[in-house]
Amino acid sequence: MADAVKDLNSTTSTSEETLTLKSPKSKLRCIVKLGGAAITHKNELESINEESLGTVCSQLRRAMVSPESSSPAKVVGMDWSRRGGDPIVSDVDELRGSDLGLDNSFIVVHGAGSFGHFQASRSGVHKGGLHLPLVKAGFVATRISVTSLNLEIVRALAREGIPAVGMSPFACGWSTRERNIASADASQIVEALQAGFVPVLHGDAVIDHTLDCTILSGDVIIRHLAQLLMPEYVVFLTDVLGVYDRPPTDPKAILLREIAVGEDGDWSIVKPTPDHMKGKVEITVAAHDTTGGMETKILEAAVIAKLGVDVYITKAGTDHCRRALRGEVHDIPDDWLGTVIRSKRK
Amino acid sequence: MADAVKDLNSTTSTSEETLTLKSPKSKLRCIVKLGGAAITHKNELESINEESLGTVCSQLRRAMVSPESSSPAKVVGMDWSRRGGDPIVSDVDELRGSDLGLDNSFIVVHGAGSFGHFQASRSGVHKGGLHLPLVKAGFVATRISVTSLNLEIVRALAREGIPAVGMSPFACGWSTRERNIASADASQIVEALQAGFVPVLHGDAVIDHTLDCTILSGDVIIRHLAQLLMPEYVVFLTDVLGVYDRPPTDPKAILLREIAVGEDGDWSIVKPTPDHMKGKVEITVAAHDTTGGMETKILEAAVIAKLGVDVYITKAGTDHCRRALRGEVHDIPDDWLGTVIRSKRK
Repeated sequence: MADAVKDLNSTTSTSEETLTLKSPKSKLRCIVKLGGAAITHKNELESINEESLGTVCSQLRRAMVSPESSSPAKVVGMDWSRRGGDPIVSDVDELRGSDLGLDNSFIVVHGAGSFGHFQASRSGVHKGGLHLPLVKAGFVATRISVTSLNLEIVRALAREGIPAVGMSPFACGWSTRERNIASADASQIVEALQAGFVPVLHGDAVIDHTLDCTILSGDVIIRHLAQLLMPEYVVFLTDVLGVYDRPPTDPKAILLREIAVGEDGDWSIVKPTPDHMKGKVEITVAAHDTTGGMETKILEAAVIAKLGVDVYITKAGTDHCRRALRGEVHDIPDDWLGTVIRSKRK
Repeated sequence: MADAVKDLNSTTSTSEETLTLKSPKSKLRCIVKLGGAAITHKNELESINEESLGTVCSQLRRAMVSPESSSPAKVVGMDWSRRGGDPIVSDVDELRGSDLGLDNSFIVVHGAGSFGHFQASRSGVHKGGLHLPLVKAGFVATRISVTSLNLEIVRALAREGIPAVGMSPFACGWSTRERNIASADASQIVEALQAGFVPVLHGDAVIDHTLDCTILSGDVIIRHLAQLLMPEYVVFLTDVLGVYDRPPTDPKAILLREIAVGEDGDWSIVKPTPDHMKGKVEITVAAHDTTGGMETKILEAAVIAKLGVDVYITKAGTDHCRRALRGEVHDIPDDWLGTVIRSKRK
């Protein structure tokens, strides 16, 4: 892992100027990754884990409620769809003067889980070659799958009264060169934030200027947005409590509570203290995951931490998740379970 | 109508430079508008007219089949969704070497029909005022509704083997100023075309720099794309045969076969000849249509015609539709029913 982390500098060579949000009030608070494993049933094609997604959306809303808000703001359901939407707003006038009462300067990025991966790996979209009908068909099929998940996540957020707007990286014009981000104008995302919306992005099939096409993972998107927008903190929500020293299915696995990342990309485990750690830290990558799984996540998290932005990795839907989303775990409370990745400078 | 047409110059003051497609091979052939009335049941909330949509998608595919294609290309289903998708590609190798055999330099733009209009008009999104929770909720609800329609249209096209990619104007960063397009970078759309995809856009809720927000109609999007990309022809598909001299529900209504538009925006009916026409030409606007209905369509069509691009308006799913999509009605055959709007210069 250390070597891989050292290689990261090469992937960050595309350094766009940091866009500054116009008003200090709209300083970006948090970028949240909803991991594919946390919000879908990974082994069942295109199956959303409704319970987990609903809990996370509710926790996100609570994290957005302003402490200075006079009263617990009423949830204004924003999904007015016929199929499974909110009841149609009955008293339009009631809403005119009220305030959403949310400090919702958040960006949500989600993975694909059981959406998209199958289509992408079956056709080899991540390897390029759009002139092949199989790859072209797979590109289209992958985007259909991931955008249908995006729509359902936007709807779940909207039902919690979060003003979510879906923004597909492909439609935003994001593209790559040899799988590294080549063009990723975030101006429309900043504009959406400034207008009070919560942009919801996702891992997507995109144009690659050398390979024709590839898959841009949610984790790479988060790293890029963090570099551009410097959020206060970043939260990765997954289906395990955090990063372990070996596959978390191993009963001897130890949760790494704090990882410090140095200027040169080297890293060390701060908690638990080294004398508690035995043996080599392993990283598992699921075979069906075309964009890298946990390894990519940790590498991207390390780049974010180097910026001076704390990264919290924890399990979606738990109380640890709730606390991480509120940004309350900076001091790593003893009863908080998760992994903090941060800069050694701190 | 004549006065309204004369006002058009004011709406076209935002003149971006015409983007030229890099390769002559990728000259844009056609922009197709799938009218909301043609592809949805307009009086039933969020209900797709599956039969009409399916027929149009099949006609679009046939219009894309290259005349020089050696054999009728096999349909490569590109919607690999679990719910109602194509059978999963069983013989991956079969697809590797084949050619899609499509001349698919098309852009599809669809209206909202019974998707989005309700949410937009209930909340007044088209009138702006995002600081009001009602408008913000309506903006989110409108986008959920129109993007869910977009997804289903992309899927219907993909099932016909058309490599369709959804591109929401909001996500593309398109915005307006006093409801006129202020920013609408089409570079990602051109990139998608050049990669061999069919971009599928839609009327959308967008940021407006004076009103906070508004609705950008599919017709305005088409006019803008036509100005930028100069397609060979533009087809508007709707639920009637074309433009009539009075509401088409009136049994005395006469179909206007050809309308010529002059340099200064004045227009005249070429077919039927003036002695067949009696009385004033009326334009009806449906009460629930927040973006203008037939009037907007004709005004935008006139601007496109002024560019020297033929506009064909006809009924979705008919044989007239099939011929218009193939670009075969330039000489307005006697047995072709529809309206051609073109420049007087021609």
